[in-house]
Amino acid sequence: MGSKENGCAGSAQVDKGVDFANYFCTYGYLYHQKEMLSDRVRMDAYFHAVSRNKHHFRGKAVLDVGTGSGILAIWCAQAGARKVYAVEATKMADHARDLAKENGVQDIVQVIEASMEDVTLPEKVDVIISEWMGYFLLRESMFDSVICARDRWLKPDGVMYPSHARMWLAPIRSGITDQKMEDLNCAMNDWHSFVDETEAHYGVNMSVLTKAYREEHEKYYLKTSLWCNLDPNQIIGTPAMIKEIDCLQATVDEIRTITAQLVLPINADRSRISAYAGWFDVQFKGSEQNPAKDEVELTTAPDADGGTHWGQQVFLLNPPIRVNEGDKVLVSFQMSRAKQYHRLMDIELISELELSSGKRLPPITTRVSIE
Amino acid sequence: MGSKENGCAGSAQVDKGVDFANYFCTYGYLYHQKEMLSDRVRMDAYFHAVSRNKHHFRGKAVLDVGTGSGILAIWCAQAGARKVYAVEATKMADHARDLAKENGVQDIVQVIEASMEDVTLPEKVDVIISEWMGYFLLRESMFDSVICARDRWLKPDGVMYPSHARMWLAPIRSGITDQKMEDLNCAMNDWHSFVDETEAHYGVNMSVLTKAYREEHEKYYLKTSLWCNLDPNQIIGTPAMIKEIDCLQATVDEIRTITAQLVLPINADRSRISAYAGWFDVQFKGSEQNPAKDEVELTTAPDADGGTHWGQQVFLLNPPIRVNEGDKVLVSFQMSRAKQYHRLMDIELISELELSSGKRLPPITTRVSIE
Repeated sequence: MGSKENGCAGSAQVDKGVDFANYFCTYGYLYHQKEMLSDRVRMDAYFHAVSRNKHHFRGKAVLDVGTGSGILAIWCAQAGARKVYAVEATKMADHARDLAKENGVQDIVQVIEASMEDVTLPEKVDVIISEWMGYFLLRESMFDSVICARDRWLKPDGVMYPSHARMWLAPIRSGITDQKMEDLNCAMNDWHSFVDETEAHYGVNMSVLTKAYREEHEKYYLKTSLWCNLDPNQIIGTPAMIKEIDCLQATVDEIRTITAQLVLPINADRSRISAYAGWFDVQFKGSEQNPAKDEVELTTAPDADGGTHWGQQVFLLNPPIRVNEGDKVLVSFQMSRAKQYHRLMDIELISELELSSGKRLPPITTRVSIE
Repeated sequence: MGSKENGCAGSAQVDKGVDFANYFCTYGYLYHQKEMLSDRVRMDAYFHAVSRNKHHFRGKAVLDVGTGSGILAIWCAQAGARKVYAVEATKMADHARDLAKENGVQDIVQVIEASMEDVTLPEKVDVIISEWMGYFLLRESMFDSVICARDRWLKPDGVMYPSHARMWLAPIRSGITDQKMEDLNCAMNDWHSFVDETEAHYGVNMSVLTKAYREEHEKYYLKTSLWCNLDPNQIIGTPAMIKEIDCLQATVDEIRTITAQLVLPINADRSRISAYAGWFDVQFKGSEQNPAKDEVELTTAPDADGGTHWGQQVFLLNPPIRVNEGDKVLVSFQMSRAKQYHRLMDIELISELELSSGKRLPPITTRVSIE
């Protein structure tokens, strides 16, 4: 069906029109760009990463993958880049071009409106910069395009901005699981009344759809991750790293499915794990041959002083698991791309509680989608 | 780009995958079906139209275009139809099949999961029934598929359910226009602070995007129609009929662009037209050769006792027009399909106030999208 992405080994086969309707369209709005540009944690990290490591940019060629409004490209130019190729798939490219001109770097920043996979550059580049991170790092699967860009256009001694990325998981307490269970019960009560009324008024018995209705609503209320900026005191165990990605080396195969065996020591007494929280951080460390002078980190972990527009992704556990300090949760984690649409994710978590006595309780399997 | 709809003359050329992502996907959810099935005005109208006109159905072949959960098809079977072909493009078809079985009409109702345009039936039908109406009647452009079905599968003396449809426009008073103007001002004040902060913290001047940001937000706040169930006392002039459609005769060309010259007499003193409201009604009158025994009407006009899930579409006038009893508003109305996506609509209203003295004020042009 339809035209396919091409060129990059390992890239998903997807109808481009559908992908634009489902995904890229959002990035064509300035209100959405402004939301990202107003995220101070995000902005500070990229700004400092570039402005405190000018040696990576001075006189160099840079590629910005998914430039959006073009701000990263402009910073690279301001840091002394000789040339910045700023690739953007949406009409936001026009605004990026205007912005580069307004800021006097139109001779350095060349905005190219195209899918990264379709672009041909006149030279290889010294730096690839990109803000490609989605919820829980990999939602949107945009890193595929960065890998494609790197394999084609980065010089052998080139540098990636960011250079590394990590995914984290932690057990949390939250009233949200009880709330969502109650919402589901309300929805089902409402459904039962609806079935009764439809039979009474219109002579059609709808009860055969009750199971499907419940499944649809369980998926919505309980089996879809929630966006949240949590308070750090909701975390009741030591976070575990799921995965570290070296942006210079990673392959699409490596990130298509993420699996990990995690140990989460509990540090709260008489508590309940009502959910897991997932988040990410990225580092700007340069490369081994060409390290950063000033390493910068961008984290989306729970923060009492506020959060990022990424927040954390919350995966509900239903029912919650009662825990005590000294217990450990052993989690078998797997994340893969949704079958129907490669930019969304399906997660499976198998939780096994190991009590401080050493006794293990039966494993509990939780499946949740990031939509 | 992609596979195209085919077969029906005049049908829009559209990528089917994109169309599914943008449109059909919604109808695959039971929560959405339930919303429609809980609309008592809608349900009563179709239920009475069928159950009070059994002579149209007894022993007949019926086609239900876009059957959804299948309820119309089941009613037709209960009214005595010999065969009901129930066509549905989404996976909701599975539920429709279950529901037909549960209600004992599985030998009569044959659910076919396909686009109407692609279906081949074993016979021509006596009745086509469909609930094809979108906001302000024609949003979704689903009537195209009904026309296609009619031209291919309805017998020469066949009947359409509904048989007729009408679009209406009325001047209304509402605080919503002032509210939306204020929302826009707030958004722009926020933008200006954002521009200042971005320059101060990150050395990039964003002011070149101010015009585009304002345009994007004017479109969102002022130039996109609003869904509303209005109170009848908000109507300050006599509603005018924009268009009447005879479902047996209508062509896609006839509904692709709707134009009308309307006269709206004002019946409220010292008031303001802050918006126009658009709605529709449909009639179940059968055909000339084969009339309904009991004519039924479904209206989505403002109703003090509640409304329908369609509500009315509200088109803001900015600034509002001051009017007095005895004035008339002459409206030149045009609605066409959005260039980028044929299921959405663009509307142009040229308003000319004729005072009771006979004096005419200069025309005011309003453009608004139904999204």
